[in-house]
Amino acid sequence: MLKDYLVLSNEVKEALENGKPVVALESTIISHGMPYPQNVETALKVEEIVRQNGAVPATIAIIGGKLKAGLTKEEIEYLGKKGREIVKVSRRDIPYIVAKGLDGATTVASTMIIAALAGIKVFATGGIGGVHRGAQETFDISADLQELANTNVAVVCAGAKSILDLGLTLEYLETFGVPVVGYRTDELPAFYTRRSGFKVDYRLDTPEEIAKMLKVKWELNLKGGVVVANPIPEEYEMDYDTINRAIEDALKEAEEKGIKGKESTPFLLAKVKDITGGKSLESNIQLVFNNVKLAAQIAKNL
Amino acid sequence: MLKDYLVLSNEVKEALENGKPVVALESTIISHGMPYPQNVETALKVEEIVRQNGAVPATIAIIGGKLKAGLTKEEIEYLGKKGREIVKVSRRDIPYIVAKGLDGATTVASTMIIAALAGIKVFATGGIGGVHRGAQETFDISADLQELANTNVAVVCAGAKSILDLGLTLEYLETFGVPVVGYRTDELPAFYTRRSGFKVDYRLDTPEEIAKMLKVKWELNLKGGVVVANPIPEEYEMDYDTINRAIEDALKEAEEKGIKGKESTPFLLAKVKDITGGKSLESNIQLVFNNVKLAAQIAKNL
Amino acid sequence: MLKDYLVLSNEVKEALENGKPVVALESTIISHGMPYPQNVETALKVEEIVRQNGAVPATIAIIGGKLKAGLTKEEIEYLGKKGREIVKVSRRDIPYIVAKGLDGATTVASTMIIAALAGIKVFATGGIGGVHRGAQETFDISADLQELANTNVAVVCAGAKSILDLGLTLEYLETFGVPVVGYRTDELPAFYTRRSGFKVDYRLDTPEEIAKMLKVKWELNLKGGVVVANPIPEEYEMDYDTINRAIEDALKEAEEKGIKGKESTPFLLAKVKDITGGKSLESNIQLVFNNVKLAAQIAKNL
Ligand SMILES: [Mn+2]
Ligand SMILES: [Mn+2]
Ligand SMILES: [Mn+2]
Repeated sequence: MLKDYLVLSNEVKEALENGKPVVALESTIISHGMPYPQNVETALKVEEIVRQNGAVPATIAIIGGKLKAGLTKEEIEYLGKKGREIVKVSRRDIPYIVAKGLDGATTVASTMIIAALAGIKVFATGGIGGVHRGAQETFDISADLQELANTNVAVVCAGAKSILDLGLTLEYLETFGVPVVGYRTDELPAFYTRRSGFKVDYRLDTPEEIAKMLKVKWELNLKGGVVVANPIPEEYEMDYDTINRAIEDALKEAEEKGIKGKESTPFLLAKVKDITGGKSLESNIQLVFNNVKLAAQIAKNL
Repeated sequence: MLKDYLVLSNEVKEALENGKPVVALESTIISHGMPYPQNVETALKVEEIVRQNGAVPATIAIIGGKLKAGLTKEEIEYLGKKGREIVKVSRRDIPYIVAKGLDGATTVASTMIIAALAGIKVFATGGIGGVHRGAQETFDISADLQELANTNVAVVCAGAKSILDLGLTLEYLETFGVPVVGYRTDELPAFYTRRSGFKVDYRLDTPEEIAKMLKVKWELNLKGGVVVANPIPEEYEMDYDTINRAIEDALKEAEEKGIKGKESTPFLLAKVKDITGGKSLESNIQLVFNNVKLAAQIAKNL
Repeated sequence: MLKDYLVLSNEVKEALENGKPVVALESTIISHGMPYPQNVETALKVEEIVRQNGAVPATIAIIGGKLKAGLTKEEIEYLGKKGREIVKVSRRDIPYIVAKGLDGATTVASTMIIAALAGIKVFATGGIGGVHRGAQETFDISADLQELANTNVAVVCAGAKSILDLGLTLEYLETFGVPVVGYRTDELPAFYTRRSGFKVDYRLDTPEEIAKMLKVKWELNLKGGVVVANPIPEEYEMDYDTINRAIEDALKEAEEKGIKGKESTPFLLAKVKDITGGKSLESNIQLVFNNVKLAAQIAKNL
């Protein structure tokens, strides 16, 4: 039954059957995260980086109702060109999208689900969702966090964006038993910046150590994922004060315009991009490259 | 061991063994939702409607410490006559009630649990529990929502009552990955009214489509239920402003009187009934009939 | 794989293989809960009480990266002497501590995890974690509560400390389906005091009844634990008003000093001890003895 829905590319299938390292990649970044053609260029470059680092890339998306792990260039081009026409799909959306035979761009949550169904243990992305600012009142908490609590996939990311409430996000992850590991850092990175003012739970300095910790977690049947927080490379980091002022301004504007829920993240991202004169797109691309490289190195040690 | 506790009626047992459609029904509506004898008349009529629509009814309750799926007329009469003397039982209460050999009226959460233990996939009720107004301060969140997150049963309902905070309820369900489907509606119904001001996640217009979506969800091992929100028939709908004003008034009175937690729902319901001159009872009965019919149609397509 | 990590003492192993009663005990109370040498004396006395009541004690800790159930005297002495140098370990911390081969003092959550991995069903401690005061804003909710929601171990405790928000803790447990049983009490005890102003879900007056309820829960596959709330013996109870005033004062001081998260519990405990002139330590020890005895009696009936 599962095999009626899940379609692996030959390369991914062969790698998994032979115990070769595989890195899952998401598709929301392709359809919603960047404009065309940078999104397609980035997606292909990301796959290249995975290969250069000795692993097989498995870009994940839903196409025509099939859960795909491993896309062709044509499929990546298709997702990139359609852009925001492709529905963003989280856990709750998968049954509808699949039953209707539609396309879907996978978020952190749904990429984790499809990776786990396929047997892929490591996933590289930009940043994870979290507890939104003001969630004490709105209860707006990304389904990514419950996925991290429940699904056995390590998520290599540059932390979470400061448009979220990082302190509340860390509390939520603690309550649900999700470890937050800093790669060569004691501080949780905040996507565009290496710093956030919040500590990670643990610092690990090599992919081998991270892989070992993952093995222990899952061999002990401690269900759920791990956040591997990998700071943006220094040369692409944005200025901490600039980015935070930009986010503050964008948050104010969003509130004035009554933009919330699913709409708020792309709005804030667009605003931050405006305010930072497009430098944020380059930073975004570079941090993904950086995460993908680390993910491949971890996968090789699993 | 499970079979020492779970008792199926012959009709339900035979239906499940032969893959015939079965619809689970709850018993809190019998003991707590309506006065005698309307509660018994409604419960029997509900079973009749399930049969007329080609499925087998499995009214669920705990009697003498046994988890029952499929009650006799005498048992329904017993639950209806005892009324509020029968303890309302949610997930946390089942072990105590069973260990003590007591009776229990099952809520949405506990009916889902017993349905799942019996192998029943579709359940019709009036409305689900949710996040209570003011839960930001009180943390008063119905266990029904966690059951929807965890237990593989579709719940056909007329949405949730406006005495709850419907916006927060939808956020909570999203975080925990529970799909909310509107049957022939884009808007979440609010029990007595077809409208609420909130959107459902997806609209589906036929029982076949809903059944297909359920099959996909469970074949993909995406644990948990689905809310199938079925608006009250127009002819029985209450006036949106009247009902909301009644709820506002009742909420104020409850706060003044310090009524909260488990006590607040029956109080608010009673007040709403007072204020609406009893019309709410008829609406309540009719929306249950409507849900039961849809549930039978979905079950036939599973 | 699991057996590479989990080390049972011969006594515990033999007891589990032969279906003899075993009681799990935690080690945070040894390393963080009391000063040396009372911590070691208490830990050894606790084991003695388990034996006197016909069960085998399994003190749980992580030593050199091994999950241990059943410690030698030397190991207890080691944990007691090192004290706060031993890291306090909750669910999220286990993979790191084990992968690094470090020591860890287990909290309620991690003791439950290791007990469940070893096959131990009953665990005695002082008090459980809960929802912290002000968690509406801070989201500071102990991982113990999610462990109770998910892991099949009964936790015999004297309730939870009033430094927590007991009302919110009960709401949270209700939402996640965790039963709170009062042993010979209708009221939730608050660690140092027999009263709290909050009701338990159910009162049971014998270990046999509690054991029966646990058997029902797990035979019905209702995952998760049960809180068995056992009031401190009257002769060791502290004055309700004194203790609450002490807690209020300590809470104020903690806020003024900006102490929060993991740091707040030991700070508040130390303050309460100061204010109550050391009487709280004696109460703490006596309530643990009381819980251990009840746990052994429950284990014998499972
Ligand atoms: Mn959201
Ligand atoms: Mn409640
Ligand atoms: Mn905390």
